[in-house]
Amino acid sequence: MKILIINGPNLNLLGSREVGIYGDKSFDGYLSLMQKLFEDYEISAYQSNWEGEIIDKLQEADGNYSGIVLNAAAYTHTSVAIADAVKAISIPVVEVHISNILDREEFRHKSLISPNCIGSIMGFGLDSYRLGIESLRVITNN
Amino acid sequence: MKILIINGPNLNLLGSREVGIYGDKSFDGYLSLMQKLFEDYEISAYQSNWEGEIIDKLQEADGNYSGIVLNAAAYTHTSVAIADAVKAISIPVVEVHISNILDREEFRHKSLISPNCIGSIMGFGLDSYRLGIESLRVITNN
Amino acid sequence: MKILIINGPNLNLLGSREVGIYGDKSFDGYLSLMQKLFEDYEISAYQSNWEGEIIDKLQEADGNYSGIVLNAAAYTHTSVAIADAVKAISIPVVEVHISNILDREEFRHKSLISPNCIGSIMGFGLDSYRLGIESLRVITNN
Amino acid sequence: MKILIINGPNLNLLGSREVGIYGDKSFDGYLSLMQKLFEDYEISAYQSNWEGEIIDKLQEADGNYSGIVLNAAAYTHTSVAIADAVKAISIPVVEVHISNILDREEFRHKSLISPNCIGSIMGFGLDSYRLGIESLRVITNN
Amino acid sequence: MKILIINGPNLNLLGSREVGIYGDKSFDGYLSLMQKLFEDYEISAYQSNWEGEIIDKLQEADGNYSGIVLNAAAYTHTSVAIADAVKAISIPVVEVHISNILDREEFRHKSLISPNCIGSIMGFGLDSYRLGIESLRVITNN
Amino acid sequence: MKILIINGPNLNLLGSREVGIYGDKSFDGYLSLMQKLFEDYEISAYQSNWEGEIIDKLQEADGNYSGIVLNAAAYTHTSVAIADAVKAISIPVVEVHISNILDREEFRHKSLISPNCIGSIMGFGLDSYRLGIESLRVITNN
Amino acid sequence: MKILIINGPNLNLLGSREVGIYGDKSFDGYLSLMQKLFEDYEISAYQSNWEGEIIDKLQEADGNYSGIVLNAAAYTHTSVAIADAVKAISIPVVEVHISNILDREEFRHKSLISPNCIGSIMGFGLDSYRLGIESLRVITNN
Amino acid sequence: MKILIINGPNLNLLGSREVGIYGDKSFDGYLSLMQKLFEDYEISAYQSNWEGEIIDKLQEADGNYSGIVLNAAAYTHTSVAIADAVKAISIPVVEVHISNILDREEFRHKSLISPNCIGSIMGFGLDSYRLGIESLRVITNN
Amino acid sequence: MKILIINGPNLNLLGSREVGIYGDKSFDGYLSLMQKLFEDYEISAYQSNWEGEIIDKLQEADGNYSGIVLNAAAYTHTSVAIADAVKAISIPVVEVHISNILDREEFRHKSLISPNCIGSIMGFGLDSYRLGIESLRVITNN
Amino acid sequence: MKILIINGPNLNLLGSREVGIYGDKSFDGYLSLMQKLFEDYEISAYQSNWEGEIIDKLQEADGNYSGIVLNAAAYTHTSVAIADAVKAISIPVVEVHISNILDREEFRHKSLISPNCIGSIMGFGLDSYRLGIESLRVITNN
Amino acid sequence: MKILIINGPNLNLLGSREVGIYGDKSFDGYLSLMQKLFEDYEISAYQSNWEGEIIDKLQEADGNYSGIVLNAAAYTHTSVAIADAVKAISIPVVEVHISNILDREEFRHKSLISPNCIGSIMGFGLDSYRLGIESLRVITNN
Amino acid sequence: MKILIINGPNLNLLGSREVGIYGDKSFDGYLSLMQKLFEDYEISAYQSNWEGEIIDKLQEADGNYSGIVLNAAAYTHTSVAIADAVKAISIPVVEVHISNILDREEFRHKSLISPNCIGSIMGFGLDSYRLGIESLRVITNN
Repeated sequence: MKILIINGPNLNLLGSREVGIYGDKSFDGYLSLMQKLFEDYEISAYQSNWEGEIIDKLQEADGNYSGIVLNAAAYTHTSVAIADAVKAISIPVVEVHISNILDREEFRHKSLISPNCIGSIMGFGLDSYRLGIESLRVITNN
Repeated sequence: MKILIINGPNLNLLGSREVGIYGDKSFDGYLSLMQKLFEDYEISAYQSNWEGEIIDKLQEADGNYSGIVLNAAAYTHTSVAIADAVKAISIPVVEVHISNILDREEFRHKSLISPNCIGSIMGFGLDSYRLGIESLRVITNN
Repeated sequence: MKILIINGPNLNLLGSREVGIYGDKSFDGYLSLMQKLFEDYEISAYQSNWEGEIIDKLQEADGNYSGIVLNAAAYTHTSVAIADAVKAISIPVVEVHISNILDREEFRHKSLISPNCIGSIMGFGLDSYRLGIESLRVITNN
Repeated sequence: MKILIINGPNLNLLGSREVGIYGDKSFDGYLSLMQKLFEDYEISAYQSNWEGEIIDKLQEADGNYSGIVLNAAAYTHTSVAIADAVKAISIPVVEVHISNILDREEFRHKSLISPNCIGSIMGFGLDSYRLGIESLRVITNN
Repeated sequence: MKILIINGPNLNLLGSREVGIYGDKSFDGYLSLMQKLFEDYEISAYQSNWEGEIIDKLQEADGNYSGIVLNAAAYTHTSVAIADAVKAISIPVVEVHISNILDREEFRHKSLISPNCIGSIMGFGLDSYRLGIESLRVITNN
Repeated sequence: MKILIINGPNLNLLGSREVGIYGDKSFDGYLSLMQKLFEDYEISAYQSNWEGEIIDKLQEADGNYSGIVLNAAAYTHTSVAIADAVKAISIPVVEVHISNILDREEFRHKSLISPNCIGSIMGFGLDSYRLGIESLRVITNN
Repeated sequence: MKILIINGPNLNLLGSREVGIYGDKSFDGYLSLMQKLFEDYEISAYQSNWEGEIIDKLQEADGNYSGIVLNAAAYTHTSVAIADAVKAISIPVVEVHISNILDREEFRHKSLISPNCIGSIMGFGLDSYRLGIESLRVITNN
Repeated sequence: MKILIINGPNLNLLGSREVGIYGDKSFDGYLSLMQKLFEDYEISAYQSNWEGEIIDKLQEADGNYSGIVLNAAAYTHTSVAIADAVKAISIPVVEVHISNILDREEFRHKSLISPNCIGSIMGFGLDSYRLGIESLRVITNN
Repeated sequence: MKILIINGPNLNLLGSREVGIYGDKSFDGYLSLMQKLFEDYEISAYQSNWEGEIIDKLQEADGNYSGIVLNAAAYTHTSVAIADAVKAISIPVVEVHISNILDREEFRHKSLISPNCIGSIMGFGLDSYRLGIESLRVITNN
Repeated sequence: MKILIINGPNLNLLGSREVGIYGDKSFDGYLSLMQKLFEDYEISAYQSNWEGEIIDKLQEADGNYSGIVLNAAAYTHTSVAIADAVKAISIPVVEVHISNILDREEFRHKSLISPNCIGSIMGFGLDSYRLGIESLRVITNN
Repeated sequence: MKILIINGPNLNLLGSREVGIYGDKSFDGYLSLMQKLFEDYEISAYQSNWEGEIIDKLQEADGNYSGIVLNAAAYTHTSVAIADAVKAISIPVVEVHISNILDREEFRHKSLISPNCIGSIMGFGLDSYRLGIESLRVITNN
Repeated sequence: MKILIINGPNLNLLGSREVGIYGDKSFDGYLSLMQKLFEDYEISAYQSNWEGEIIDKLQEADGNYSGIVLNAAAYTHTSVAIADAVKAISIPVVEVHISNILDREEFRHKSLISPNCIGSIMGFGLDSYRLGIESLRVITNN
C-alpha cells in the first residue's frame, strides 16, 4: 500500500512557525517515525506552497497511490480548485489538520475541501497524520 | 484504559434509520468488534435521546474514564449545554461523526462541540468510532 | 386506525397560558370532542416538556400507530434531534400549530421539523388538530 | 356555502408539469371529486398566471363567497401585492400548497401571504385543497 | 400643466381597507378636492392592480403629461420593472406614500423605485398626494 | 405659526460643499426666500454640527414652535439619540433631505429618525425645505 | 426551425431608453437583420411589460416552436413565476441579456430564471440575441 | 416571601469548572450566606442539566413562590421552550448570570429568555444572585 | 463612598416622555429617595444629551468617585467612544437601563458599553438605579 | 484572426472527470472540430492548474491575439487576481462555462471575472466554447 | 507648512489608558519630539472627546493649514458626520491609527472616514503620526 | 539595512494598467528614485503573479532582509496562505497599497494580510512604497 502525504502552504516551516499552535517538531522527523510505525506501507510526503502544484500532484497521484493524506493548510479555506481536484480523482483522500480549525479564527472554520474527502481528522497535532494513515488502512480493509 | 462511547439522539436506530447515510449495521454488533479489536481496553457505550442525560453522563465520567468518544448527533449543532459540559470536565473527549457533516444540510455544518474537544473525526462510517478510540490511545501515549 | 397526538413544551398549560394567542380551552376538553367526532378512530394524546422524551415517544410509536399529529411547540424552531427522529421513523407524521407561526416573532418562522413531515397545518386554533387527524384519514385512504 | 379556489401561475399545467413534485392528476378532475365530496357546498375554481388578475379576483370575491382557498404558487414568495389584497378583504382566506414548500428550494421557504391568511395547509398533494375546504367548514362552524 | 396620479395595487380600496393605516376617506373624494385646490392644473388619476399595466401607463404618459405622482403601493418593494420604467421615461416622477413606510413591516422599508424618482414624500396620509402635486409645481418652476 | 428649521452637521457649508450633490446656493439666501414666500409664518433656522446640541434644541422647541423641519444630515443614519428626542417631544417633526438618500451610498439608505417623524420629504434639492414647511401647513390645517 | 424571441418589460423602448447601457438601435431594425442572417429560420418576436403575459406566451409556445430566446429584463431578478414556467415547458429556452448583468447594480446580479434555462448569454449588446439564436442551432444540431 | 433559585446546566460544577470565569466558590456555600443575609426570606435552590426539568420546575413554582431567580446558563442562548415557560407563568422571574455574557463568545450574546423576564442582572459573579434576590424584594415592595 | 449617576440623552425628560415605557416619575424625585435610602453614601447625578460631555464626565470621575452608575440611553447602542472611555478608567462602572432593552426594537438589543462594565442591570424601572447602587456596595465589599 | 482559449484548473481532465456534469468528450478532440469549423481562424488552447500561470498567459496574449475565450473553472469564483488581469489587458476576453454555474453549488454562483469580460456564455456544454469563438467574430465584425 | 493633528475621544489619556495597546508615552512628549524632528514645519495638535467639536475644527482648519493628520479614534467606526466633514473641506487629510485596527475587535475593522482621506497609516504606534506628517510632506512635494 | 519590496499580481503592468487608478509611472523608474533617496539602504524589488512564489519569497527573505514592504495586490483580499506566511516569518512586514482600498469595490475592503503586518499604509500612490520604507526605518530605530 502506497500512501502520499500532501502538505500545503507554510507547512515546510513546521517546528519553527507558531510553535504554540503547531508544536516544535519538524515534519521530517515525524515522517520517519510514521514510516517505522507503518512498516508494511510505502509512505512518502510532498510539500508545496503553490496551489497549482498541489492540484497537479493530486492528479498525478491518481492511480499511482492507494490513498492520499491531505493537509491543504490555508488553501483548505479558499481553494475551490483543489476541492475540484479532490473530487475529480478516484483514489481516497483523507483531510487532516494539526490544530482544531473550528477552535481558531472564524475564516478557518469553513473547509471547502472537506465535502469531497472520504473523511476528516483534526486537532490531534502531528498525530492527525498518523490517524489519517490509520484511516486509509481501515477504509481499504473494509 | 477505560473508554466511554456516548451516542446522542436517534443513534439507537443505527442499522435501520436512513440506511443510505448511516449504513445497515447496528451499533451493538460494531461495539463487540471494537471490544475484540482493542482487547486491552475496557470499552463501554451509552446512548440517550436526552440532552440533559448526556450532560449528566459526561460529568459522571470525569475521573472514572480515561477518555470519551462522543457522537452528539443532532445535539452537535444545537447544544451549547453539552459543549459547556465537555469544556467543564478534564478527561479528553474526541468528537466523532459517522457521516461527513460538512457534506450534508447546511444546519449540520456547524459543530458547537468541536472547539471544546481534543480533536474531531468524521466521515468514516462506523469506523469513525474505531479511529476515535485509536486517537485516545495515541493521545494518552504521547 | 390508531392516532397519537404528541404535544410539546408548555402545551399542558393550554387554556390558561397567553389566552390571546392560544385560546381559553383546555386540551383535554378538546380531545374528548375529537374522540367523539372521530368515533371509528382510537385517538390518544401525550404531552411532554422534555425534548428527549418526545424523541423516545416518536420512536416507540413507530409501528404501533397509524400516524402521528405532532405539535412540537417551541422545539419546532430549535430541535434538530426531533426532526431527525421524525425522519427516522416510517409512520406518517403531520405537523400542526395552533397559531400561525409565520405571523409571530421571527424566531418562530422557521420550522426544522416541517421538511420531514408529510404536511403542515397551522393557524386554525385547536382545530389545527382536527384538520391534522382529518389529513391522516385522507392520506391513508389514498 | 360558496367557496372559491384561486390557483396561481402555472397551476393550469397540473398533471403534465414536473410530475415528480406535483403529481399526474389534472386539477379539473380533482375539482369534480371535491364538488361531489362536498355536495352541500358550491365550489368553483379560477386560475391565472397574472398577479394583477389574482388581486382583482380576491377583491371581487369579497362579500360574494364564504371563503377562499388560495394557492398562489410562485407569487407566494414574491407578491406583497397579493398579500396586501388578502389582508384588505374580510372573508377568510386559507393558504394551500400541493408540495411542502419548506422541503424545496430556499427561495420557496418564505411565504409573504401566510401571515395574512386564517391558516396554512401544505404538503398533502392535491388533498391540500380538500383539507383547505374542510378547514373553511370547521372555521365557519365555530 | 397636466399631472397624472398613478395608484398601485389595492389602492382602489382606500377608505375601506385597513382604516387604521390608510384612513377612511375614498380616493375619489380626495381627488375632487385636489382638482379644486389646484384649479390651474389638469389632474387625472389612474389605478391598477397590475404591474404590467402600470408600466404601460408610465410609458404612455411620457411626453403627454408634465409630471407623474406615483404611489406604487406594494410594487414599491418588489418591482424592478416599474423602477426601470420610471428611469426609462423623461418626465419627472414623484414617489408618494400615504403611510410612513419606514415605520411599518421591514419588507416595506426598501423602495426599489425611489432611486429613479425626482423625490419622495411619505407619511402625510392622503395629503402626501397634495404635497406630491405641489412638488411638481415647485420643480417645474425652478 | 412658528416653524423651526434644524440643520445637522456640515449643512453650514451648503453652497460650497460637494456642489454636484447639494447645489451652489447658500442656505441663508434660501431661508430669506422662504420667509418671504410664507409671510404669515415665523420661520427661523438653526444649524449645529453637534448631536447633543440638536437634541437640546429639539427639546427646547417643544411647546414653543408649531412644528419642526429637521434635516439631520449625517446623524440621520447614526443617531438613535436624536430619533429618541424626536419621539419624546409632542410637536410635529417633518424630516427633509436635499438629495435622495436612497440613491446614494448604502449607509445613507437607512434613516433612524424617519419612523418617529410625521413624514419624510427628500430629493427636491433645497425645495425639500419648502415642501417641509408646506407639509406643516397642510397637517395643522387638517 | 421556428424560434420565438420573448422580450420582457421596457424592452419596447430599446433605442431610446438609457442609450449608454442599451445602445441606440431599435429592436425591430435588429430583428430584420437577424431574419436575413438566419434565412432558413422562422424568427418572430414578442414583447410584453406584463409578467403574466410572458408566462402565457411561454406556455403557448411549448410544442409550437423549436426554441425560445428569452430576455426577461427586470423580471429576471424578481419572477419565480416565469422561472417556473420555463421549467414547466419542454422546448429549450436560452436566456439572453443585452448588458452584463453582473457588472450593474447588485439587485441585477441574481437571475432566478437562469437555473431553468439551457444556457445563458449576456453582455454582447443586441448581438446577445444573435448568439442566442446561434446557440439554439448548435444545441438542436447536437 | 418564598424565592426559588433555578440553576441550569453545568452550574452544579460551580467552584471547580472554569475557575477563571466562574470563580472557585461552590454554590452551596454561597446559598447559605444568602439564606443568612435574607433571614426573613425562604430561599431554596434547584439545579438541573435537563431543559425539560427546568420547564417543569418553572411551571410547578407558579403560585407557590413569590418569585424566581433564574440562571439558565447555556439554555439562555438556545431554549425557546424555557423562554415560553417563563412567559406562561405569572410570578416574576429575574434573569441572572455570573459572568457578563456580552463579554464572552458571540453565541452567548443573545438571550432568548431575557425578553420574558422582569429584568436581567449579569456580570457580578455569584453576587448576581444576591442582587437578583434584592431585585425581587424591590419589585414586590413597589 | 461617593457614587456618580450619569444619565444619557433624553433622560432629563423622565416622567413626561413615553410614560408607557419609562414611567411617570421624574428622576429628581427618585434621586432624593435614593439619597435617603443610602444615607451613608454620597450620591450625585449628572445628565447630558452630549456624547462628548459624557466621555469628559467619565474621565473626570476617575479617582474622584468610588463607582459610577451609567445609563447611557441611546448612546448604549451607538457609542464606541463612551465604551472606550469606560474601559479607559479604573473605577467600577455599572450599566443600568430602566426598560428591558432586549424586549424593545432590535437596534436596542446590542450594548456596545456592556462588555466594558462590571455588570449590567436592566428592566426594573427606576429601581434599576437602586440595584445599581446596591451592586456597587456589594462589589466594593468583596 | 488568432484566438486563444485558456482553460483553468482540472479542465485537463475533461472527458474523464464528473462525466455527468462535464460530458465524456476530451477537450483535444473538441478543439480539432472547432479548428475545422472556423477554418479562417487560428485557434490555439492552453490549460493550467496554476492561477499565476493563467495571469502570465493573459498578459502575454495581450496584443498577440485578437481575443481570448476564458474558462477559468474554479478560479472563476475565487480569483480577484485573474479578474484584475482581464481588466488590465486590452484585447477582448469572453467568459465561458461548460455547465450552468447558476444551477450548481451556491459558491459557484458568483463570478469575480464576469464584470471584466466582454460577455459571458454558459451552460451549453463544450459548445459554450464554440459560441465563445462565434461571439468574438460577431464583436470584432461590429 | 502648517500641520494640524486632530485627536479624537480618549486620546487625551494616552500613556495611561490600556498601555498594552496604546503604549505608555503621553502624546505631549511625543509631539515635542515631532516638532523638533520636523523643524521647518509648524505642527500643532488638538484633542476632543466631542464629535461636533472635531467637525467644527476640521471646517475651521480648511484654508488655514496645509494638511491634517486625523486620528478619529472611536469615531472612526461610527461617525458619518466626521467623514462628511473630511469630504467637505479641501485641504488634504491623512488618517492615522496607533494600533492596527484590522487586528482588533470586529467593530473596529470598518473605517467610515478612510474613503474620504488622502491615505491611511496604521499600526506603527505613535510613529503613525510621524509617518502621517511625512506623508503630507511627500504629497505636497509631488 | 536591506529591504525587499514584494509586488503581487499585475503590478508588473504599473504605468500601463488602469492609469486612472494606478498612475502612469512604471515601477522600475520609481524604484530607482527610491534607491537614490534612501542611499544608505539596499533596496531590491521582486514581482510575481503567483501566490505560491510570493510565499516562497517571504520565507526565503526571513533572516536575509531587515524588513519587507509588501503590496500583495489582489491576493490581499483572497490569500490566507500569504497571510500565514507573513505571520510565520520574523522580520517586519509592512503592507502598502497604491490606491485607497477602502474607497474601491467592496471585495477590496477586506485585507486578510493586514492583521499579520506591523502596519499598513495605503492611498498615497507610488509614494505608499516610500512611506513603507520610511516606516521600516522608523520601526527599526525605535
